[in-house]
Amino acid sequence: MALISIIDGFHPMNNAKLLDRAAELKPTLHHRIVEPKGGFQLKERYSSEIKDIVLHRVHHLALGKGDNLCLDFGTHNVGYITLDLSYSGSHPDAPAYLKLKFAETFKELSENSDDYGGWISTSWIQEEFIHVDVLPAQITLPRRYAFRYLKITTMDTSQKYKLIVKHAEIRTETSADWSKVNPCPSTDPLLQKMDEVGLRTLANCAQDVFEDGPKRDQRLWMGDLRLQALTNYVSFRNYDLVKRCLYLFAGSRFPDGRISACLFTKPYVEADDTWLFEYSLFFTVALEEYMQQTDDEEALNDLYDIAMQQVEIALRFVTRDGRLSKEAADAAFFDWCEGVDKEAAGLASIIYTLRYARRLARRKNDWSQANWLMEQLDKLREAAKKNYWDEEKQCFVSNGQVNLFTQVWMVLADVLPPEEAKKLMERSDEFAHLYPMVTPYMHHYYISALLRAGLKEKALEHMRFYWGSMLDAGADTFWEAWNPEQPDASPYGGSIINSYCHAWSCTPSYLIRSWFSREKHTDDHL
Amino acid sequence: MALISIIDGFHPMNNAKLLDRAAELKPTLHHRIVEPKGGFQLKERYSSEIKDIVLHRVHHLALGKGDNLCLDFGTHNVGYITLDLSYSGSHPDAPAYLKLKFAETFKELSENSDDYGGWISTSWIQEEFIHVDVLPAQITLPRRYAFRYLKITTMDTSQKYKLIVKHAEIRTETSADWSKVNPCPSTDPLLQKMDEVGLRTLANCAQDVFEDGPKRDQRLWMGDLRLQALTNYVSFRNYDLVKRCLYLFAGSRFPDGRISACLFTKPYVEADDTWLFEYSLFFTVALEEYMQQTDDEEALNDLYDIAMQQVEIALRFVTRDGRLSKEAADAAFFDWCEGVDKEAAGLASIIYTLRYARRLARRKNDWSQANWLMEQLDKLREAAKKNYWDEEKQCFVSNGQVNLFTQVWMVLADVLPPEEAKKLMERSDEFAHLYPMVTPYMHHYYISALLRAGLKEKALEHMRFYWGSMLDAGADTFWEAWNPEQPDASPYGGSIINSYCHAWSCTPSYLIRSWFSREKHTDDHL
Repeated sequence: MALISIIDGFHPMNNAKLLDRAAELKPTLHHRIVEPKGGFQLKERYSSEIKDIVLHRVHHLALGKGDNLCLDFGTHNVGYITLDLSYSGSHPDAPAYLKLKFAETFKELSENSDDYGGWISTSWIQEEFIHVDVLPAQITLPRRYAFRYLKITTMDTSQKYKLIVKHAEIRTETSADWSKVNPCPSTDPLLQKMDEVGLRTLANCAQDVFEDGPKRDQRLWMGDLRLQALTNYVSFRNYDLVKRCLYLFAGSRFPDGRISACLFTKPYVEADDTWLFEYSLFFTVALEEYMQQTDDEEALNDLYDIAMQQVEIALRFVTRDGRLSKEAADAAFFDWCEGVDKEAAGLASIIYTLRYARRLARRKNDWSQANWLMEQLDKLREAAKKNYWDEEKQCFVSNGQVNLFTQVWMVLADVLPPEEAKKLMERSDEFAHLYPMVTPYMHHYYISALLRAGLKEKALEHMRFYWGSMLDAGADTFWEAWNPEQPDASPYGGSIINSYCHAWSCTPSYLIRSWFSREKHTDDHL
Repeated sequence: MALISIIDGFHPMNNAKLLDRAAELKPTLHHRIVEPKGGFQLKERYSSEIKDIVLHRVHHLALGKGDNLCLDFGTHNVGYITLDLSYSGSHPDAPAYLKLKFAETFKELSENSDDYGGWISTSWIQEEFIHVDVLPAQITLPRRYAFRYLKITTMDTSQKYKLIVKHAEIRTETSADWSKVNPCPSTDPLLQKMDEVGLRTLANCAQDVFEDGPKRDQRLWMGDLRLQALTNYVSFRNYDLVKRCLYLFAGSRFPDGRISACLFTKPYVEADDTWLFEYSLFFTVALEEYMQQTDDEEALNDLYDIAMQQVEIALRFVTRDGRLSKEAADAAFFDWCEGVDKEAAGLASIIYTLRYARRLARRKNDWSQANWLMEQLDKLREAAKKNYWDEEKQCFVSNGQVNLFTQVWMVLADVLPPEEAKKLMERSDEFAHLYPMVTPYMHHYYISALLRAGLKEKALEHMRFYWGSMLDAGADTFWEAWNPEQPDASPYGGSIINSYCHAWSCTPSYLIRSWFSREKHTDDHL
């Protein structure tokens, strides 16, 4: 996730008590040593065939000026690289000048940083230029990288010697504990693979906090957190990490109490001056889901008021006649698809959240609040139907625009009776063409809507198709953005900057473990 | 100094006892904190005027993508840089990606690394690309740099913030102890300035060993060491550092006993597989001069045989009729001027060294050796006169070529009687045109020859002209190569790679303190 929002003079409202509690919940990080599975040399021009020229004796290869060696570590890893470097020829009489390019996917290896002209900072591109003054040397780079491939290019050695890469290893880092994970309940090989890749995605994003992506942004986003938490509950079960992240969001908010879309934790905790309408609401949803898992009274006591506040703030953006204000609609996200009218879907996200808020109020024995929330729910469902349902088209219309996003969120908000919701979602393909979904994040909510409408087979089929096509394209972890019809697309003006291990894409593991392997479901995190 | 010599299967002969003694003599390094004297911003295109736009409030400047800030630390320094970095705007949502360019001279700041196509490794160019993940941050770079200017370019920040350089400082490093230095004995402002710059040059090269240049090569070269030692004796008087360097050269030699032209000390001591004919001989010269200063019996006992061996090896390259073999002539250096025939000068360098070797033998009471050396001296002086003196041209001719290098070394070798040497050196301008000297190293020997020929005024005049023109061109330390008529020339195919603080250029301090401020001279290190 990456958005540009700048609020002049922004100072978040911090709560020392909540932040101290979050600090106490810092997770233990686990490490593992991973060595390359093979190596190859890449020619100037991209060629997929080169991938087959595997060098089995990488440590015998002498690299002169301009030569490269690509190491393949087998799958996606997050951690620190150590290289044992030596030389052949005379004693090195000049430093070795190396370019190191870390790539999550094979394609990235051949992409050129200078070609990127998008709106995100190029500083996220994982490449370094380093001088090694003395050889032989063992060097460990101080920064953490997310990668499967490492391309080492010798920018220069000297005429007297060539570089030899004797050994390389990654010290991986994650707060996910694989020993806590039960075997995949499915016997279907595709679902097993999908589950494995989903869990690796989550594990590689589970660091000191739940990061959105270990390559880019590397920080807490509320929309990602909610989906990470769901998947975490059926796998690594690190409840304290979810709690820590909720306390962090609660501990640094907008001055008016809103939960920020995203949070920085270094060098100190500070809410970003970015507001995403439905992300603030997901705090309430995520807290309720956390309570379902843990019955954690401390968290309920500390965070309940803040959860209720998010709903109350959101309701201020609803007009007297039950529409969402333009300001709020513009601040909603849902997906990177451009041109989508988000007014109706934004209203639906409030209704959706009211359901979770009411459960929280009941759990807190706050009956007057629960009743008030029920009233709001009824009122907004009615308004949503009245304002956005088009009798002729038999679907929801947002400011004259028909899009799938609106239908999905209206179904998730229970605005339609079950049979009508089912009929609507059976026609989902009709709505998807003009404004296609481009993020696994939105695809997750699409599948949720199918499941909520009782279309379990269709949901499973879509998951197999969508995440399956990512697997077919070579994903070791699930990607931030993916449109099977436009494999090279990027919301950021260049795929080199895309994150190929992205938290909001890990949900197949949740869906497989919660929905597609059991007969009965006790939860409904849809 | 930099040369490309590669000997397949080269293994130096190491002497553990000598190397252990060298290790014991490791100097203490002294440090000082230096802050910038001002700052400026450089436009894309080189402009010397920009230098005048001095920013007095550097720490208020916000640097966006592509902006630069140049810091001027007032003079040439060698050491480690620390930067205090902060930001203006929103909390940084992406790393800062910076290019740091360290420049010894103002001109280097505007030179482009990509334009260099010479034969030396570009890895010597002092520039780094670094990612700063968290701001504010204090960062200290691990490598040592030689520089007066630091150009910080923000390759990228993000749209949310700009970079601020709040503070910068250098922790300088040298083994030279300034408290040991007597005031400059001259009252002439130009000589005082020249002495100051010469001493700074020596100090900035005086590190763990006497380096040739702290920017490039950064290691012991025998030709540089001899001149550094001479200047050191009249300034910092670090006799142990000279001793350490002599032991290092003696401790790792060619398998046949030859002193290597240069030595690596990291990760372990190893002679380079480079032989320069007169450099090997300078070991003998430098030991004799060290003994004059110290009467160090241990050094004499440990190194005498090796010093004698250098002379004996050199004599093997003299033909029966008293000429220098082509192999040896080709291995002589003298200067970076191209096309110079070095046969006669090479022979002269043996004769010159025989004088020092004989003194060593007498000091060692090795009378038979002293007598033998005297015989060789007489024999070779006669042969040199016979083989290379041209009666018609009234100068020395080497394989049909008249050059200044030959005249200088023949005079230094006392091949002519004093009056004839004087006459020859009075005509020195005649010989200089076709093959101009381009290094201060050779200019030093030219001045030495003038002094040896009794032309003290002419010598002083030349020193004032040559090193003075470097001062006029802005030198804070004396440069590796300098031809006032071709200020941009480089022996390496591009001035960006030149060293602008080079040991062999520091000798004005020696000359001023030994020759141009006193009436009488007790030494004759010419």
